[in-house]
Amino acid sequence: MTQSPYPVIRMRPKAQARAIRHGYPWVYDNELVTDRRTKKMEPGTIAVLEDGERQPLGLVAVNPASRIMARMLERDTAAQIDQSWLAARLTRALSLRERLYDQPYYRLIHAEADGLPGVVIDRFGDVAVIQPNAAWAEVFLSQLTAALVEVTGVSHVLKSASGRARVLEGLDDVNAVLVGKAPEAALPVPMNGATYMADLLGGQKTGLFYDQRPNHAFAARLCKNARVLDVFSHVGGFSLAALAAGADSALAIDGSAPALDLAQEGAARMGMQDRFETRKGDAFDVLTALAEEGAQFDVVICDPPAFAPSKKALEAGLRAYERVARLAAPLVAEGGYLGLCSCSHAVDLTRFRSACTRGIGRAGREGQLIHTGSAGPDHPLHPQLAESGYLKALFYRL
Amino acid sequence: MTQSPYPVIRMRPKAQARAIRHGYPWVYDNELVTDRRTKKMEPGTIAVLEDGERQPLGLVAVNPASRIMARMLERDTAAQIDQSWLAARLTRALSLRERLYDQPYYRLIHAEADGLPGVVIDRFGDVAVIQPNAAWAEVFLSQLTAALVEVTGVSHVLKSASGRARVLEGLDDVNAVLVGKAPEAALPVPMNGATYMADLLGGQKTGLFYDQRPNHAFAARLCKNARVLDVFSHVGGFSLAALAAGADSALAIDGSAPALDLAQEGAARMGMQDRFETRKGDAFDVLTALAEEGAQFDVVICDPPAFAPSKKALEAGLRAYERVARLAAPLVAEGGYLGLCSCSHAVDLTRFRSACTRGIGRAGREGQLIHTGSAGPDHPLHPQLAESGYLKALFYRL
Repeated sequence: MTQSPYPVIRMRPKAQARAIRHGYPWVYDNELVTDRRTKKMEPGTIAVLEDGERQPLGLVAVNPASRIMARMLERDTAAQIDQSWLAARLTRALSLRERLYDQPYYRLIHAEADGLPGVVIDRFGDVAVIQPNAAWAEVFLSQLTAALVEVTGVSHVLKSASGRARVLEGLDDVNAVLVGKAPEAALPVPMNGATYMADLLGGQKTGLFYDQRPNHAFAARLCKNARVLDVFSHVGGFSLAALAAGADSALAIDGSAPALDLAQEGAARMGMQDRFETRKGDAFDVLTALAEEGAQFDVVICDPPAFAPSKKALEAGLRAYERVARLAAPLVAEGGYLGLCSCSHAVDLTRFRSACTRGIGRAGREGQLIHTGSAGPDHPLHPQLAESGYLKALFYRL
Repeated sequence: MTQSPYPVIRMRPKAQARAIRHGYPWVYDNELVTDRRTKKMEPGTIAVLEDGERQPLGLVAVNPASRIMARMLERDTAAQIDQSWLAARLTRALSLRERLYDQPYYRLIHAEADGLPGVVIDRFGDVAVIQPNAAWAEVFLSQLTAALVEVTGVSHVLKSASGRARVLEGLDDVNAVLVGKAPEAALPVPMNGATYMADLLGGQKTGLFYDQRPNHAFAARLCKNARVLDVFSHVGGFSLAALAAGADSALAIDGSAPALDLAQEGAARMGMQDRFETRKGDAFDVLTALAEEGAQFDVVICDPPAFAPSKKALEAGLRAYERVARLAAPLVAEGGYLGLCSCSHAVDLTRFRSACTRGIGRAGREGQLIHTGSAGPDHPLHPQLAESGYLKALFYRL
């Protein structure tokens, strides 16, 4: 018999409790007994999950409005989900990051894999940004914020409500300042020897992504004395790392003027603005124009937005990735390097690699594949959701 | 019409010349017109490959004794395969390695991906070891050796005939000294701040593998002030890198006394023998014994030999990987790290990850997957053979 103060929800007799017992963290609506009481639960309610035989499986966060109706929080049904429980999860996550990084700039919480389902927290020194992308996190937001300040000592905590998953959870998209104040200007972020400018909660979504850090670092190893082209550059992810590693010159291309301004500001802070240029425009158009100009680079990196955000968009997305490879390859000098990235969940590594190899071939070039990269270790994966490794970076030598 | 001095071999009319045209580097015996003349070709003969319509596809190396009867060497049928052609391939490969590494210790040629099918060359400073694992390389061995000395300036060139592929090519297993002399003692090899001792061509196959370099480096980031256990340690791959990164202590386990002696010698050269211990024995037995002793480590790495060297051995291999994970996980302290490697071609990443996650679960532990590693960039992949990425390293936090 459960001693928990929490209400109980139950799996259907025929539902696979075995997967949950073996660590799978999600329970779908069709696996649960959805009686009137369950349907009426407030989104974010903590409950005891039982299997069809009334054996307890753990504490879950319930959202009757979501297809993922219950998310596993804790195996121990005697636990209490409160600030000190949240602080324990944050402490554990922090100790991994402190082992990995010398400076407090990283993704601190990567959702399910860090034991806080649907919660993402990025840290930028003294500022943290919480993305509460599941209903329970919205309910516990003040306790989560207090625990975050307690564990990390940050002075400013912002809430970003831009995550697309919030819609599926029935949540709004209103940003907020939870502790301290919002930075008045873009923040400098040190990474791989470069300085990036992050405009947190800026109107233009010009924040910063930590996931590409190891791929920036790998590309930088190829860039000494090189002419570098950074396509879909955002705030200069690959180009500024290349300059820090001794590139002769870097050209960043992006459709967003605010992003390129931040990239310029980063280069200026690094004292490398003389070796850095930007060009605003549609990446496909600029790639075509550069080819017509006969431009050549030693290293070309293309890190486009998700071309295949859903399974429906898969075929069109693969064609777009192939097109990027086909347009970029002719700009790579003989013996140079081409880096191609995808952050599309729906595109697996094998298909992405085929599309890229085909595009390179259609450009009349041949390549060796020297490295396959993924998101950094501050983006851990839940082992039962490990296929969710969305970020793929392929480095070819042509 | 072909102007080549080389004989012609032809694909069958119905064979898929398209794959070859798109870069696939192998032609199987059942795709070729194997008339008496072709069957009589000396293993290693250079020939012009034509499609069923007599259109030239390129120059290939022919071995009528092998299922892979022709290997693509060169698209340009007017080329001549000689020392200067070999030197050009070596120069190109060298420039990649010189960009990647500060010191001349790396795999210089990784077969098909470096444009020299079936040829592997490892460099240890002033010494190079050639593995001519295809018949053509055996035929061209003196020119290849001369080109290697010309391009790299090495003083000693050894031939290792231990590659298993040589049997399929009908080649012997006799090692040789091709230039200079065989090292009289094990050579020190610097890697990731550690010093490894490589016994090249030693009777015990205690050579050195460069492929794990980035995985050693990743593990080392987790090892500062840690107690480290290195299972299937060979000459100390993970443990010496951990010591170099500031591990408190490292224990290396292997079945080979000569390998452990070399590991000890490396630790002594690093001045870290006080923090290093070895234990000779069957890894499964030692893991069981350590658990009975109640031993705990902050980082445990298991890098076993290929448990599934062939598809036939797949199921047994997966069970062995699961068993390694199950026996190793209890030795990892709460919040510590477990690294699990596979060098089995037949085991893909998804299956290996499932086996490891299952083993960890059976040990009653849960983990986050923080990093998935592969072989280093001095082991490039041919893009059409990219599934051949055999080395997989999974790092869990428990």
